[in-house]
Amino acid sequence: MSFESFLVHDKLENYEDPVKYNKDWLPLVEKYRSDLADATSEEYKIKLPKPIDTLIAEQFNPLDYLYKEKLLTKEEFAITDSSATDLAAKIAKGDLTSVEVYKAFAKRAVIAHQFTNCALELFLDEGLKRAEFLDDYYKKNGKTIGPLHGVPISLKEQMNYKNKITHGGYVSQLKHIPTEHGVTIQILENLGAVFYIRTNQPQTLMHLDSNNNLIGLSKNPFNLLLSSGGSSSGEGSVVAFGGSAIGVGSDIGGSIRGPSAFSGCHGLRPTTKRVSLHGGVSAGAGQESVGAVAGPMARSIDDIDLWMKTYINDGKPWDLDHASLPMPWREVPKPAAKDLTIGVMYDDGLVRPSPPIVRGLKDTVDKLKAAGVNIVEFKPIRTKEAYETVHKMYTCDGNYMQHKLLSESGEPLTKLTKWNLNYGDGSKAYTVAENRELNVVRDSLRHEYTEFLVNNKIDFILSPTYNNVAPKSEEVYNWSYTSLFNILDFPTLVFQTGLFQDPAIDKWTEEDLKYEFRSELEKLENSSYKPDEFIGAPIGLQLSGRRYFDEEVVAAGKTIVDILKADLFKH
Amino acid sequence: MSFESFLVHDKLENYEDPVKYNKDWLPLVEKYRSDLADATSEEYKIKLPKPIDTLIAEQFNPLDYLYKEKLLTKEEFAITDSSATDLAAKIAKGDLTSVEVYKAFAKRAVIAHQFTNCALELFLDEGLKRAEFLDDYYKKNGKTIGPLHGVPISLKEQMNYKNKITHGGYVSQLKHIPTEHGVTIQILENLGAVFYIRTNQPQTLMHLDSNNNLIGLSKNPFNLLLSSGGSSSGEGSVVAFGGSAIGVGSDIGGSIRGPSAFSGCHGLRPTTKRVSLHGGVSAGAGQESVGAVAGPMARSIDDIDLWMKTYINDGKPWDLDHASLPMPWREVPKPAAKDLTIGVMYDDGLVRPSPPIVRGLKDTVDKLKAAGVNIVEFKPIRTKEAYETVHKMYTCDGNYMQHKLLSESGEPLTKLTKWNLNYGDGSKAYTVAENRELNVVRDSLRHEYTEFLVNNKIDFILSPTYNNVAPKSEEVYNWSYTSLFNILDFPTLVFQTGLFQDPAIDKWTEEDLKYEFRSELEKLENSSYKPDEFIGAPIGLQLSGRRYFDEEVVAAGKTIVDILKADLFKH
Repeated sequence: MSFESFLVHDKLENYEDPVKYNKDWLPLVEKYRSDLADATSEEYKIKLPKPIDTLIAEQFNPLDYLYKEKLLTKEEFAITDSSATDLAAKIAKGDLTSVEVYKAFAKRAVIAHQFTNCALELFLDEGLKRAEFLDDYYKKNGKTIGPLHGVPISLKEQMNYKNKITHGGYVSQLKHIPTEHGVTIQILENLGAVFYIRTNQPQTLMHLDSNNNLIGLSKNPFNLLLSSGGSSSGEGSVVAFGGSAIGVGSDIGGSIRGPSAFSGCHGLRPTTKRVSLHGGVSAGAGQESVGAVAGPMARSIDDIDLWMKTYINDGKPWDLDHASLPMPWREVPKPAAKDLTIGVMYDDGLVRPSPPIVRGLKDTVDKLKAAGVNIVEFKPIRTKEAYETVHKMYTCDGNYMQHKLLSESGEPLTKLTKWNLNYGDGSKAYTVAENRELNVVRDSLRHEYTEFLVNNKIDFILSPTYNNVAPKSEEVYNWSYTSLFNILDFPTLVFQTGLFQDPAIDKWTEEDLKYEFRSELEKLENSSYKPDEFIGAPIGLQLSGRRYFDEEVVAAGKTIVDILKADLFKH
Repeated sequence: MSFESFLVHDKLENYEDPVKYNKDWLPLVEKYRSDLADATSEEYKIKLPKPIDTLIAEQFNPLDYLYKEKLLTKEEFAITDSSATDLAAKIAKGDLTSVEVYKAFAKRAVIAHQFTNCALELFLDEGLKRAEFLDDYYKKNGKTIGPLHGVPISLKEQMNYKNKITHGGYVSQLKHIPTEHGVTIQILENLGAVFYIRTNQPQTLMHLDSNNNLIGLSKNPFNLLLSSGGSSSGEGSVVAFGGSAIGVGSDIGGSIRGPSAFSGCHGLRPTTKRVSLHGGVSAGAGQESVGAVAGPMARSIDDIDLWMKTYINDGKPWDLDHASLPMPWREVPKPAAKDLTIGVMYDDGLVRPSPPIVRGLKDTVDKLKAAGVNIVEFKPIRTKEAYETVHKMYTCDGNYMQHKLLSESGEPLTKLTKWNLNYGDGSKAYTVAENRELNVVRDSLRHEYTEFLVNNKIDFILSPTYNNVAPKSEEVYNWSYTSLFNILDFPTLVFQTGLFQDPAIDKWTEEDLKYEFRSELEKLENSSYKPDEFIGAPIGLQLSGRRYFDEEVVAAGKTIVDILKADLFKH
């Protein structure tokens, strides 16, 4: 079974236009790349130990290298390995300045970028000026400007940034320069955040990976051979590497959760309409069958809580975006283990998890049980129907908008763009009546899952984020574990287990090798896991709750990470 | 300009099938009608003063008649002219029994039905048994079963009712007998409500009027020549007549607000997703461009508050319906007049209000100003675009679902069904991409209105509910005043001003008669207002707030009704 044999609906012949692209657009792409190279501060740059291609081939772990080689000072490590919650508190008390904090993160972000290719845009001088402004403000007023005063925050590039190119991974949008910030960036700025890096994302924003015609692939900070995930690809790299205190991603099929799980940080896909998406580039304008969301990625669950709480309660997105719900972020205390009932979905019935994921899930369940959590098995409910339905939702405009955004420049289509444009019925333009039928299926799924959880008093579903740890770049096809919770619109937290792939133990067993694949997709996915090629990949899992029980999901996430001792700041 | 000249898109030739209808369906219709006649309790029935057609022609006011002729006992008047809030409190204290309360309302409901043709179904024996059960429960347990214990509530028929035909105005659905209650009925039952009447609605549910092939038109309790409005037609009649303590309607273009304004009660169109619509008949399954809502209609704003508060906070609809937001109903105190800023939209730029509405609005503004309310003018924003867009949303499935529901029985199409099926582009089936373009327009409208209110610190918009008081039956074409707030999804309260049409003063002036119509629709609508034919029609207005500020809208409604002294229980 080959990748190409899946591409049945649409040969995608009317997208690319090499002549137009090379003549009209490639010069803009080259300018964009050279601007990025110029912006990669010489002050902070390190000398790579070997050429990057060699490091990639060798499955180099740049995070290990960072610590071993002490590429930061002790003070810089102390800052960048603090939670945003602690940093904000220290800045507010006057124990740290915004500039100190900023410089440490800027340095670590530049190193992250050198190894992982996470940044689409760096604007370190602007970041410094902003940090200086905040320190001045603090000095003059004796107080912070807001609860995120001085916190360095990385941004997925897709969100409109005032007076900066915002392309969303589409070459055709290199001419799109918004005149104002998207609402979420505006709110974070109002709260006191410092911006200095905008991060990579794939063409179409619809890969669990990162390739595009701008700067290409982002890499995993624990193993450069592997992908950092996507579509919030660069956020995964930079946050897990420690180059920003909190990152902002977005997710319509797994785009916050894939990068978080793969790259080695935590990430929240909130329920829809709690975080504003107003002002940004995507093919989804007016699409509401499966809602996109924005949400935080961080190395501490406390920081996810901090971000959501301050963003919602202080930022009041509903005053700037009619679509955001005026639903305050509730203070939900960290639950005791014994008060939690978690349904575990070991396998979604579509694609079998690989050995490290099986181990990660088993180990987690054992520790949770030992701590007193009530664990029950959660048998997948209509997962195949859910997967087929959400795929149809992704393309049911017949890829009208994707085609418009891609063909305008005639840019070459990447491998996974070809894959996702063939989701569902590919280029078939659905009628409104057909789209509504998909919505009815979706609603019946939501109803059934909700009823099951309520009637069985199950608080959360624990599941793999993906059937594997971080895949090799451009070898990630299956979204079934993540997109399930998009069609359900269940808030879902990816948390790290603190475990990493180990080639010595995470092997297919004899029995595994006799397994009869349930589908060609499963075969394709399972075949790509070869233990020796995934060394040290983080093992992250998913915790999902009912719609709008985001606070409970995050609070339970804290309890779980405590039990697992999966604190990401310990090195 | 004639009504027919508007019907341009679709001649609707493939809907009706007289042969099939007469043979297969008419017998079911006749059975349904005779069941209703049988269920209209002889115990409670009165002798009409004249044949109903004569009363209609004479613009008879049955509410006046009820009081003048003392058709109820003093005790029955005392009960049925109490607010649900008072009744629930008295039942809870043991000062009234559920049976006493029920019998008084049942009697008044039967009289309401005799005059206004408001009921599609009466089940008075079941209501009595339920009231007896509640009294028993109270006796045994020394407490109520829930906060609506013993409150008689009328229900728009469209909502699924366990083991009862639920047709939604479609003859084809006479065979639809749900096996469980819709979520909202289930919640109200859990809270202690008593059910005994399900009320009339038009074919397609898309008229601001009531005609269908089941029982035909519902009439206005203040003037039988006039319509009770629609599509919650029977709710308007029965609630305003005092035949139920609270009614439940639904609204996608004005269907709670039209009947409330026309029939003479208050009614709330909540923001979407606060009240569950799960389980019911409509053509809107899977449609989410313009959201339908359910909401309360009552003779007191306190009762609207009571209904929303108990339904949401005690009923927790999100446990039964994934689509309902777990957003508690907040306690918002009644604001002081001086703390209110209200923007007044005197005319939406599309259809000029008739003299009684102009007077009602002017009188209301004068009283509010005198009381200290800050009044500013609200100039209509893109109302034409909003109206055209929402019309397209109503039909953009090419009427696929309406056609299915109507043509299955081949029932005759009523006049206003022909009107609404020709909204937008009529039978043109939109593609998904075209539908999304409508959503983008909608979102830009919501953005602009929200921004305008926030930036100008305007709390609410006050406007006509319709360009006229209650119209004559089947002469109501324009929804622009109501549907604006559906496309905006702004919570909107219709309240009574306490004023009524007076043919002696509500005349077109000389200047009015020289007016140059801005459209054929305006001409059609304005031409139908002849002062002598609308005697005593209630004058109700609309108060709208920002999305999810339902509580503020209701609280401000209390202040306004206090200022206007528009208490509906004073007779």
